[in-house]
Amino acid sequence: MKVSKETFSYEVTEDSQLLDSGIRLSPITIAYETLGELNEARDNAILICHAFSGDSHVAGFYEDDPQESNPGWWNFMVGPGKGINTDKYFIVCCNILGSCMGSTGPSSINPKTGKPYGLDFPMVTIGDMVVSQKQVLDHLGITRLHSVIGGSVGGMQVLEWCVRYPEMVKSAIPIATTMRHSALAIAFNEVARQAIMVDPNWNKGDYYQNPGPDLGLAVARMIGHVTYLSDEAMRRKFGRKRQDNKDFSFNFEANFQVESYLRYQGSKFAARFDANSVLYISKAADYFDLADKINTRESLQDLQGSHSKFLVISYTSDWLYPTYQAKELVQALKRTGQDVSFCEIEADCGHDAFLIKDSRLTNLLEGFLDGIEPS
Amino acid sequence: MKVSKETFSYEVTEDSQLLDSGIRLSPITIAYETLGELNEARDNAILICHAFSGDSHVAGFYEDDPQESNPGWWNFMVGPGKGINTDKYFIVCCNILGSCMGSTGPSSINPKTGKPYGLDFPMVTIGDMVVSQKQVLDHLGITRLHSVIGGSVGGMQVLEWCVRYPEMVKSAIPIATTMRHSALAIAFNEVARQAIMVDPNWNKGDYYQNPGPDLGLAVARMIGHVTYLSDEAMRRKFGRKRQDNKDFSFNFEANFQVESYLRYQGSKFAARFDANSVLYISKAADYFDLADKINTRESLQDLQGSHSKFLVISYTSDWLYPTYQAKELVQALKRTGQDVSFCEIEADCGHDAFLIKDSRLTNLLEGFLDGIEPS
Repeated sequence: MKVSKETFSYEVTEDSQLLDSGIRLSPITIAYETLGELNEARDNAILICHAFSGDSHVAGFYEDDPQESNPGWWNFMVGPGKGINTDKYFIVCCNILGSCMGSTGPSSINPKTGKPYGLDFPMVTIGDMVVSQKQVLDHLGITRLHSVIGGSVGGMQVLEWCVRYPEMVKSAIPIATTMRHSALAIAFNEVARQAIMVDPNWNKGDYYQNPGPDLGLAVARMIGHVTYLSDEAMRRKFGRKRQDNKDFSFNFEANFQVESYLRYQGSKFAARFDANSVLYISKAADYFDLADKINTRESLQDLQGSHSKFLVISYTSDWLYPTYQAKELVQALKRTGQDVSFCEIEADCGHDAFLIKDSRLTNLLEGFLDGIEPS
Repeated sequence: MKVSKETFSYEVTEDSQLLDSGIRLSPITIAYETLGELNEARDNAILICHAFSGDSHVAGFYEDDPQESNPGWWNFMVGPGKGINTDKYFIVCCNILGSCMGSTGPSSINPKTGKPYGLDFPMVTIGDMVVSQKQVLDHLGITRLHSVIGGSVGGMQVLEWCVRYPEMVKSAIPIATTMRHSALAIAFNEVARQAIMVDPNWNKGDYYQNPGPDLGLAVARMIGHVTYLSDEAMRRKFGRKRQDNKDFSFNFEANFQVESYLRYQGSKFAARFDANSVLYISKAADYFDLADKINTRESLQDLQGSHSKFLVISYTSDWLYPTYQAKELVQALKRTGQDVSFCEIEADCGHDAFLIKDSRLTNLLEGFLDGIEPS
């Protein structure tokens, strides 16, 4: 299945939507990819929202990748005859605002200066991300979504979609996510941010002409990576296995496989992702809060009167957004009269479980999507 | 109760004990404090082993502290009429080898160069720490311990004492500890080490003449601090409370109280502790493994034939050394014929619970210690 990366750019004028911070960011470019065909009734579109460091390349292969070496991040789930079936559905996936994978973010050129924004980039929220995705759907002529689906930070976008544009959302599948970050989740994000900001190469976000804060970014990713796994998964995968089965070296080399693995994950991430984007996206996730009505901001209470079908999914070993938080979400949705199904999947691989092929998740999604009536 | 800090220094000659790495470290100085009186039978001594960043100042106040502003770290537990009763027992607490609180460590002067060791300091193990504590007890004329007590890395020392010198240990109380680090615990330590080592001020450990890696060390401590707390404790203590109850600032200031708290803990720690000591002690904890017999190293199997009384204590919300690991320890001890009591304390404050005043722990320790027959 061949796909191509498209971009949609738009100007934000004085009277059009400002960011939640009250600042006007313009122009905004959103990179997106589509799979399948939009039907004539325009009622078979599904929006897939990616997680923290993901991108718009959700499935398939690019035209210029004849060896098919670069599949999308959810390739096992999305495609012809798969759980999210591109023979039936038209799939849209946008790179989030604030990221660095084609959409406008801190590494983009600030038209006022001709240089990358750096810390002059305004803070964006999950709501701002969703508003920019709405622009893409308007551009594509889509007014109603068969479903919005996403895991982790993608799941936050799913929930935000439901409260910002309830009339557009027929169904929603938030996976391994939360209505709001716990103190623990904020704490891990803050430590990751500090790891980046103490790297002198970070230079207050102004590093695009120089070597960037790769070392700090690698440490930040190592922290993130630990939170995506679970105690059980790490015991199974690494335990106390030593590198090359060698005895202890009695120095600070990586003696254990888990050390070597984390160092590799850290440096691999630093090679592909922008450190400032980590700062902005992590802050957006920390700010996200649909549990309480704060000032004029949206909350799940705004769903009162609207009717979407929800499938909430959590994983037993996810300690970043544990099942108790998914249950709180289910209760909050039910209080507003929504039709909510909930499934906790037994899995020992932690928060990232939804990115690992598993027929239980595939079957759940396929069955739920088939049960949504066309409008 | 006034105490004073003593030091004991000794030379390690060619034929005396080498470190587990095979290297000879000499001279070795161990800072220690004592409380109470050693009785004539010399059978009322209790050794208390401190945790990662602790010191020999376990309880009481120094003579030069008339305001009593600097109590020992376990002051609520140790003293006249307290859980560990200094009216009955003679308490010894040593700063661990590799630390920076008076005992020999990487910040000590290397006699060969006249400069601080830095990374020329040899790797030390939990076993090496225990061997150096034994030297202090020899110096004090103590041949049998009423009990050895410690939490976390202190608990590892307790277990190591039991296998290195089983004939000296009448009873042992390992608290919130493990027989060996899980992959998760190693992972957190490795991320903390990397946070220090990527700080350019670390300078491969050679920073004692210059500003040290305080920023990296602060990040390392923030990571550690998160693992010492629990999801529940952080929700109760911080939740999503904002600094000064202010609305979001939409910048990278500390918006949430938990962020501000962690930053404070990080910089406070950097002001009092040596970064290289964090590297060495964390590695010693990662290497520690009494579960399997690796080469000629000790394991709990070596307890076969000896008889100590054990009280193993874990906390429900400790996710660094969870209860399942304490239960594995209990099983391993029972297999060697030891007399083991086990108590899991219901507490939502995480790994550090043993450092928080709680009458349940106090009563447990008091009762257990009273039940040990004098030899």
